[in-house]
Amino acid sequence: MSDDDQSLGARLRRVRAHSEALAAPLSPEDQALQAMPDASPTKWHLAHTSWFFEAIVLGPHAPGFRPHDERWARLFNSYYESLGPRHPRPQRGMLSRPSLAEVLPWRHAVDEALAAFIAGADADTRARAWPLIELGLQHEQQHQELIQTDLLAALALNPLAPAAWPGEPPPVVAAEPGWLDYAGGSVEIGHGGGGFAFDNETPRHRVLLQPYRLANRLVSNAEYQAFVDDAGYRRAALWLSDGWAVVQAQGWTAPLYWRDGGLEFTLYGERERQPEAPVRHLSFYEAAAFAEWAGARLPSEAEWEHAATSATPPAQCFGAVWQWTRSSYDPYPRFRPLAGAVGEYNGKFMVGQIVLRGSSVATPAGHARASYRNFFPPAARWQYSGLRLALDA
Amino acid sequence: MSDDDQSLGARLRRVRAHSEALAAPLSPEDQALQAMPDASPTKWHLAHTSWFFEAIVLGPHAPGFRPHDERWARLFNSYYESLGPRHPRPQRGMLSRPSLAEVLPWRHAVDEALAAFIAGADADTRARAWPLIELGLQHEQQHQELIQTDLLAALALNPLAPAAWPGEPPPVVAAEPGWLDYAGGSVEIGHGGGGFAFDNETPRHRVLLQPYRLANRLVSNAEYQAFVDDAGYRRAALWLSDGWAVVQAQGWTAPLYWRDGGLEFTLYGERERQPEAPVRHLSFYEAAAFAEWAGARLPSEAEWEHAATSATPPAQCFGAVWQWTRSSYDPYPRFRPLAGAVGEYNGKFMVGQIVLRGSSVATPAGHARASYRNFFPPAARWQYSGLRLALDA
Amino acid sequence: MSDDDQSLGARLRRVRAHSEALAAPLSPEDQALQAMPDASPTKWHLAHTSWFFEAIVLGPHAPGFRPHDERWARLFNSYYESLGPRHPRPQRGMLSRPSLAEVLPWRHAVDEALAAFIAGADADTRARAWPLIELGLQHEQQHQELIQTDLLAALALNPLAPAAWPGEPPPVVAAEPGWLDYAGGSVEIGHGGGGFAFDNETPRHRVLLQPYRLANRLVSNAEYQAFVDDAGYRRAALWLSDGWAVVQAQGWTAPLYWRDGGLEFTLYGERERQPEAPVRHLSFYEAAAFAEWAGARLPSEAEWEHAATSATPPAQCFGAVWQWTRSSYDPYPRFRPLAGAVGEYNGKFMVGQIVLRGSSVATPAGHARASYRNFFPPAARWQYSGLRLALDA
Amino acid sequence: MSDDDQSLGARLRRVRAHSEALAAPLSPEDQALQAMPDASPTKWHLAHTSWFFEAIVLGPHAPGFRPHDERWARLFNSYYESLGPRHPRPQRGMLSRPSLAEVLPWRHAVDEALAAFIAGADADTRARAWPLIELGLQHEQQHQELIQTDLLAALALNPLAPAAWPGEPPPVVAAEPGWLDYAGGSVEIGHGGGGFAFDNETPRHRVLLQPYRLANRLVSNAEYQAFVDDAGYRRAALWLSDGWAVVQAQGWTAPLYWRDGGLEFTLYGERERQPEAPVRHLSFYEAAAFAEWAGARLPSEAEWEHAATSATPPAQCFGAVWQWTRSSYDPYPRFRPLAGAVGEYNGKFMVGQIVLRGSSVATPAGHARASYRNFFPPAARWQYSGLRLALDA
Repeated sequence: MSDDDQSLGARLRRVRAHSEALAAPLSPEDQALQAMPDASPTKWHLAHTSWFFEAIVLGPHAPGFRPHDERWARLFNSYYESLGPRHPRPQRGMLSRPSLAEVLPWRHAVDEALAAFIAGADADTRARAWPLIELGLQHEQQHQELIQTDLLAALALNPLAPAAWPGEPPPVVAAEPGWLDYAGGSVEIGHGGGGFAFDNETPRHRVLLQPYRLANRLVSNAEYQAFVDDAGYRRAALWLSDGWAVVQAQGWTAPLYWRDGGLEFTLYGERERQPEAPVRHLSFYEAAAFAEWAGARLPSEAEWEHAATSATPPAQCFGAVWQWTRSSYDPYPRFRPLAGAVGEYNGKFMVGQIVLRGSSVATPAGHARASYRNFFPPAARWQYSGLRLALDA
Repeated sequence: MSDDDQSLGARLRRVRAHSEALAAPLSPEDQALQAMPDASPTKWHLAHTSWFFEAIVLGPHAPGFRPHDERWARLFNSYYESLGPRHPRPQRGMLSRPSLAEVLPWRHAVDEALAAFIAGADADTRARAWPLIELGLQHEQQHQELIQTDLLAALALNPLAPAAWPGEPPPVVAAEPGWLDYAGGSVEIGHGGGGFAFDNETPRHRVLLQPYRLANRLVSNAEYQAFVDDAGYRRAALWLSDGWAVVQAQGWTAPLYWRDGGLEFTLYGERERQPEAPVRHLSFYEAAAFAEWAGARLPSEAEWEHAATSATPPAQCFGAVWQWTRSSYDPYPRFRPLAGAVGEYNGKFMVGQIVLRGSSVATPAGHARASYRNFFPPAARWQYSGLRLALDA
Repeated sequence: MSDDDQSLGARLRRVRAHSEALAAPLSPEDQALQAMPDASPTKWHLAHTSWFFEAIVLGPHAPGFRPHDERWARLFNSYYESLGPRHPRPQRGMLSRPSLAEVLPWRHAVDEALAAFIAGADADTRARAWPLIELGLQHEQQHQELIQTDLLAALALNPLAPAAWPGEPPPVVAAEPGWLDYAGGSVEIGHGGGGFAFDNETPRHRVLLQPYRLANRLVSNAEYQAFVDDAGYRRAALWLSDGWAVVQAQGWTAPLYWRDGGLEFTLYGERERQPEAPVRHLSFYEAAAFAEWAGARLPSEAEWEHAATSATPPAQCFGAVWQWTRSSYDPYPRFRPLAGAVGEYNGKFMVGQIVLRGSSVATPAGHARASYRNFFPPAARWQYSGLRLALDA
Repeated sequence: MSDDDQSLGARLRRVRAHSEALAAPLSPEDQALQAMPDASPTKWHLAHTSWFFEAIVLGPHAPGFRPHDERWARLFNSYYESLGPRHPRPQRGMLSRPSLAEVLPWRHAVDEALAAFIAGADADTRARAWPLIELGLQHEQQHQELIQTDLLAALALNPLAPAAWPGEPPPVVAAEPGWLDYAGGSVEIGHGGGGFAFDNETPRHRVLLQPYRLANRLVSNAEYQAFVDDAGYRRAALWLSDGWAVVQAQGWTAPLYWRDGGLEFTLYGERERQPEAPVRHLSFYEAAAFAEWAGARLPSEAEWEHAATSATPPAQCFGAVWQWTRSSYDPYPRFRPLAGAVGEYNGKFMVGQIVLRGSSVATPAGHARASYRNFFPPAARWQYSGLRLALDA
């Protein structure tokens, strides 16, 4: 077994274990909650990520592999049309069977099968399968973030305001305010070097940027409170037309989890909002309205990436909240999806969504990249999403 | 402690224990499932029936009583406007907290408080509270049936077709076919004598019935299959207008849990349909269309009750399926709801619903009565509901 | 030509002309408005009633008859499944073709064909066709009322509050307040004698009534205002459960066409509400809630009919507003629909609706009867619907 | 009066007259039809464009100007939040008043007021108001296209398949097939020179294009038929995820107005589809699926504009169908909306929409430009929308 194989195997074990660690404090009932069609139960995430390894890696590449339970593919296939029929997304919370007590042993069986596969693969198999194992690992990390955001959405519907887990939220590191200047010009963005990247980050290509400024830090709760206090949610002129329609239809008056009395709902229960903490759980519409109100704008994704990879990157690029950009999620020039089922991973979602950059408090360590293109519909608020202001220079 | 008190206490213990026995084979995940807004999770039923005793009996009548957890009233109040705000019905499945492990001890605490209350009450208290304890007991029995129908609706959404509990369904007792003649005339219906009845069964009153005939047995699966085979679901002329609209909008082609290959989904998993078994999980619309196709009609609720209490009652009145009548659920002449919060029990639902008579395989022993007025909206199919034919004589 | 034929022919001419007289003050644009799926444009009513004569009378019974335009049957068939496919009800307002300028000549062609048919029919044909002509005439009168209610619903959506026609509304005749006592007993209701009746009024049959009282007059605007002022729309305890849900979902706070400043919207434009005028444009839910608030109840349809045909009928039975009863629209004992397509006229709607009795200001002269069973869903408000109180005696 | 003024006045008269010429063959009933919330009645377009001149030009700039009827602003303001409340968009078809007979004189009164204003304005007024008159003129031209597309959508709902106007559709000019190569590089796009442009076409700016190829002609009916015949609408792999969801939910199997038997519905009634004619009434989803099926892609808007303004532009850029691009409708770098109410014209719609380029058979002469950015949601099909293929070179 080569060092690389050891490394891949070890990383895989760590990542897989982290998913279960996230779920460990939760009861089987907690792990079954589905707050809305867009969110999934914890147990479903634990199972889906295992199915992914079965369907993408072990089934096609491990000789003689048999799925743990053939009937489960239908339940835990998310959206891969080429991999067969799927249980309806809005009914993922209806799957009391298989139970959590069945899913966890499945996970371990998949772990063992992957370990054996890694140990025994020949060079050809490695060439074909290692990228898919890496993809499965990155995929599992994405679901680690969704475990948290989807659980938060579900617990938020409980009038008892329960805490998902004990303890204290991580402390907020406030950044220095200020503007940073970037000259722009003809710059390269997108993933180009070694290491893993999703297909949607490629190909690396050159774009033209005019000079611009980015805020050194994210918009804070206190700043967003000023927008709310200044009737931000009642002034149509600040909003994109679709956003204003949603504000009225949904009765939005504040970020998703803000609660009366200066509180916000978190995975640690109801907590006082920290004024200096980055505001979070905003839709793109709210981010854009705030920027309008502030006399600024959202950065384009190219501006964001260029600054983040510059010699003088702004603070809070990573680890606090995903940052809405003013860029629709369109394909990069000459973008090609991966071949096979994994080609459905990103490309087919490239319409009607907005790019977010950076990473959040829920993003697993080692998963973030400057070229990372996260994306959600403009009305989505249940992610750890906030904003950073930009200006023309 | 009087004999009556012992009897009431003993019945209460047995009924309360039966609820838990129904739930015992189910995992906490099973007990959390909510298939649709009209149905509730098992755990919710277990909790709601306990809340009912706290809110209706113990709180108002037991000196010094304190609820187990004050915050839970909001979660487990079903529809009593006079008893405070309620968690939205469609989100009962979102209540992972309190957990089943918290709800069961609550049940036992309520049981103990009721036992102590029964043991210690003076005559005045008895006069006021015993009818409410009896109501709570009957109420719990109603929820025992709902535990089964709501669970069935939830498990039916799982592609694995899981069995709720092991073992075999109770054997079908087929009745002799044939018609029974009833002279009608001026007859009395409604509850009038001793023993418990819900307010909607009163007052006993006199109605005029013309001579009629009732089928000695319920419509069977085989008979209903003939209706299906005769294009019953594709011939508008057989249907009430609203029924036809639902057939088209929902794509109905058979009873709710019929499955391909002569199977039906049950709490024992997928099973072969027994031809002679009463057809079940029909809406009123389907029952009425079948009767039209059969050249017959549904009985009125007065006809049903008169026959069931006659010297020659038809077979299968009780214990198989609830039987749709051709009577809308209107108040009886001079009906008065009970005073206080329990006045919301029945009266406020007296519009837009159809009366069903009899009882079903899911009705607890001792709960049925000839004067019992069950009611559901005409499109409801998730109950154990079937039909018996009637004719003018 | 017999006297009867002359009479039938003359009545037909008068009724047909009255429909056009109602439409005459309206522009083609007014006559094309469809406020909601339940309502139809004036032009559609004018056309549908003509189609009815073609499809029910002339086509089956007049030798050699050819429809004016065969393509129009699909457009103007309302709900007769047995008479072929139908244009979707919600899109009746999309039929700019045929134009009003085409529909009016069609009406006149039908009139002429009917006159010729009446003049030339032999005895056999008369026996078969006269009842259908009579049905068509009564049907047209029903649509004369709908022309007014549907137009009112459409004009009410125009912020200009336009008047449908010039002039003044008919004066309100206030009745004396008071209660009238009826002994009840075994009484007959339903149509039994000569003259026209719809099938749903038959057969005449005997029912038992306990002693009761009816208000001599209808509930007035002033009385209803007191209910509104007493928080009637904000007190759940007054409402049926379904009604309370509608109040909250729709935000109801007053009858449908009440407007600020003591005004109401009418076919004569916005007018001051007359305090002594019967309140109108109520749903059944509102009528029932008002009765609850007033410490009274709604009459059953049998009580209403018995009183209206007694020696001492209450005032305002006819000509002001239809009066909601506490009777669901169920079939009378031994009810049989008419044979053929006209069997779809009434029977297939006998579920989910409530009976109204009397007649309204919009009901054509000669159309009302004490045995008349009008029916609408409990949430319908766009008819001239009000209420009369009842009490147990 | 200067030559410029004469020219502006003359163009204005011609444009205004053209709107009425489009409506002239239509009855008042035709002009009142609203097929769906996104479409508006012809009469509404005629009125709205007049309101625009009153609200944007005459009210703010013509001394002493009084609106024709102050109550009409509410009815005919489309979406300008800053100009007061608006009649709900889905109910534009409910406005039988003001009648067409009132709207046409209003148009003429506005025409006269504009003519007088143009004749009498001093230099300062001109500087401020001429750009707004030009905007109103261009705005009216946009509505001339919508008059046609919205009317087509309405007449398509009539089973009689009526023709909007007599005569023959304009002949199809087929282009030569073939691919044209463009070198790309650093190119300028956006409006930069003299003449009118909407704010969303600015500022002119430089972008980087890689070498690419464009089809010389639009995709034809025959080519699209091959896609349909090759199960294009049943193969998930060809579709963006959102598009596939719409295909299934809406049951799409062909372009919007294709009808059985090789026909399509047009403003000239049902007509045979011409194989060589550009396919039209496609959504973006269908355009993208076709391109995927064809092994090609949609051009970006920058590619389209660069080619259209090159020395060798492809055929059929203008006058046939608007061409979906693969560009979301995002703001250009440093885009600034116009000041005042007209700032709501374009900018607030810059999310969730896709750019179309070119112009269609319904676009008025003189209205098209290479820098023109039309935009619609990706599911919209009622416009004259088709596609042109692109390839990486």
